[in-house]
Amino acid sequence: MHRVRFQDPAGSTRDGTWHGDHVTFGDQTYDINTVSILPPSNPTKIVCVGLNYADHAKERNKDIPDRPLLFLKPPNTLAGHGDTVTLPANKDRIDHEAELAVIIGTQARNVSADDAMEYVAGFTCLNDLSNRDDQDREQNWVRGKGFDNAAPMGPVLATPDEVPDDATVELRVNGEIRQSSTRTELIFSIPELIEEITTYMTLEPGDVISTGTTSGVAALVDGDHIDITIEGIGTLTHDVRIP
Amino acid sequence: MHRVRFQDPAGSTRDGTWHGDHVTFGDQTYDINTVSILPPSNPTKIVCVGLNYADHAKERNKDIPDRPLLFLKPPNTLAGHGDTVTLPANKDRIDHEAELAVIIGTQARNVSADDAMEYVAGFTCLNDLSNRDDQDREQNWVRGKGFDNAAPMGPVLATPDEVPDDATVELRVNGEIRQSSTRTELIFSIPELIEEITTYMTLEPGDVISTGTTSGVAALVDGDHIDITIEGIGTLTHDVRIP
Repeated sequence: MHRVRFQDPAGSTRDGTWHGDHVTFGDQTYDINTVSILPPSNPTKIVCVGLNYADHAKERNKDIPDRPLLFLKPPNTLAGHGDTVTLPANKDRIDHEAELAVIIGTQARNVSADDAMEYVAGFTCLNDLSNRDDQDREQNWVRGKGFDNAAPMGPVLATPDEVPDDATVELRVNGEIRQSSTRTELIFSIPELIEEITTYMTLEPGDVISTGTTSGVAALVDGDHIDITIEGIGTLTHDVRIP
Repeated sequence: MHRVRFQDPAGSTRDGTWHGDHVTFGDQTYDINTVSILPPSNPTKIVCVGLNYADHAKERNKDIPDRPLLFLKPPNTLAGHGDTVTLPANKDRIDHEAELAVIIGTQARNVSADDAMEYVAGFTCLNDLSNRDDQDREQNWVRGKGFDNAAPMGPVLATPDEVPDDATVELRVNGEIRQSSTRTELIFSIPELIEEITTYMTLEPGDVISTGTTSGVAALVDGDHIDITIEGIGTLTHDVRIP
C-alpha cells in the first residue's frame, strides 16, 4: 500500500491512498493535480546517517565510521513532493543526497535489531540537502544540514512489503542520472540503525531515519529539477530555487 | 507573570499560572503537590549553544568560537520540574550544565538582532545534560546531547519583564553550589543568537534556545538532587537516576 498525506481542495489535511494519477480518502477521489502532497509523516525528528555507503565516504575523503555517524534534521527542514524549495543564498555548494528513509510506526526504545522491523511503518524517499560551506566549518551540522527545506520527503509512505530488499535508489537532476545505488549497499542495515538509535533515544510514530547516500553528490543550481526514484516507493520530485 | 503547563488531577493538560505553592487555571486552584508540572512549552526543537561562556570554554580546553557553536536537542530530551530523570547507564561522565533558556512566542525567520526580543515569549531554566563519553567521540553530539531526559526544563515560563538583564544563574547538587554566573557573561547575546539561528531556520512558537553554560560542570551520580535557580524565574528541581 502507498499512503499519502495531502491537503484537499478545501484545505483539510488527509491521510489517504496514492494511486499514481489520483489519490483517495474515504469515498472521495481527487486528481493528483488538485491536491497539495505533504510529507508522508509529521516527524518530531529526522535522524540521519552519514557515510553509510563506502563510495560516498570515499568521495568525501572520510573513513568509514566504526559505528553509525548520526546527525539530526529538525522538523523545519521538511518539504513535500512537488514543492519548489528555496535554499540558502550565497553558498558555494549545496548538494543533493538521495536517500531511502524509514518511517517509524510505533513508539520505540531499546529495540533489538532482531525485532526492529516490527516498529517500521514503511519507507519513503528523502533528499538530504547539504550546505557544504557551513557543514565543513561547524562541529555539529546545524547550519549545514538543518536549514529550512533541507529535507524534501515523499511522495508516499510505502509499506515494507512494497519495497524489495535490494531496492534501487536513483537520483536525476534535470533528467540526467547522478546517483544510483541499492538498499543492499548500506554499511549499517536498517535494523542495526534502529537498535543503535533506540539505545539512546525514543523514536515516536512518524519519526524518520534517513539511511545515508551513495556517491555522485554534486552542487545544485537555481532552477534544477530533482527526481528521486526508489523501487517500490515511486518518485519524489522537487524544484530548486537559490535566490 | 509566571506561566506553568501542568497536568491536573483529572489528567488534563493546562496552561495556567504559577504562584509558588499553588497553580491556577481559570477559576480552579491546585496545591502544587497535587499536579504534575510539565515543561513550560512543547518545542519542535531545542537549539543549544556551546562554549558561550569564556570560563566554560577554558575548562573544556576549547577556543571561543567566532560564531555561535550550535547543536540540537530533539523533543525526546524533555523532562519536567520534579521529575526523576533516568540517564544512560555505564558512562564515565554525564555532566550537569545550568542554562538560561529562551522560549519563542511567534514564528520567526530572518529576524534582526534589533527586533529579536519581540519574538520572545519568556525564559526558563534548562539543564543541558551531557554524556561526555559519547560527545567526545562523535562528529555531531546526538548520543552525547540527544538522549532521553537530556533536557529537564522549567518550572515556568517567566515573561521577559520578570528577568533582569543581569539575572543570576545558579546550580546546586545536593544543596552545594556548583555553578554560578549571570546573563551578562554570555559571549553571544540572546538577540545575536536569534538573528544567527533564524538566518538558517524557522523558529516555531514554543521552540527553545538554550544559551550555554558557565564553568563548574561536573559528573552526576545516581541519586543526585539538582536545583537550578535563575533570578526572576525560580528553581527547576530534578533528581537523577543512573541504572
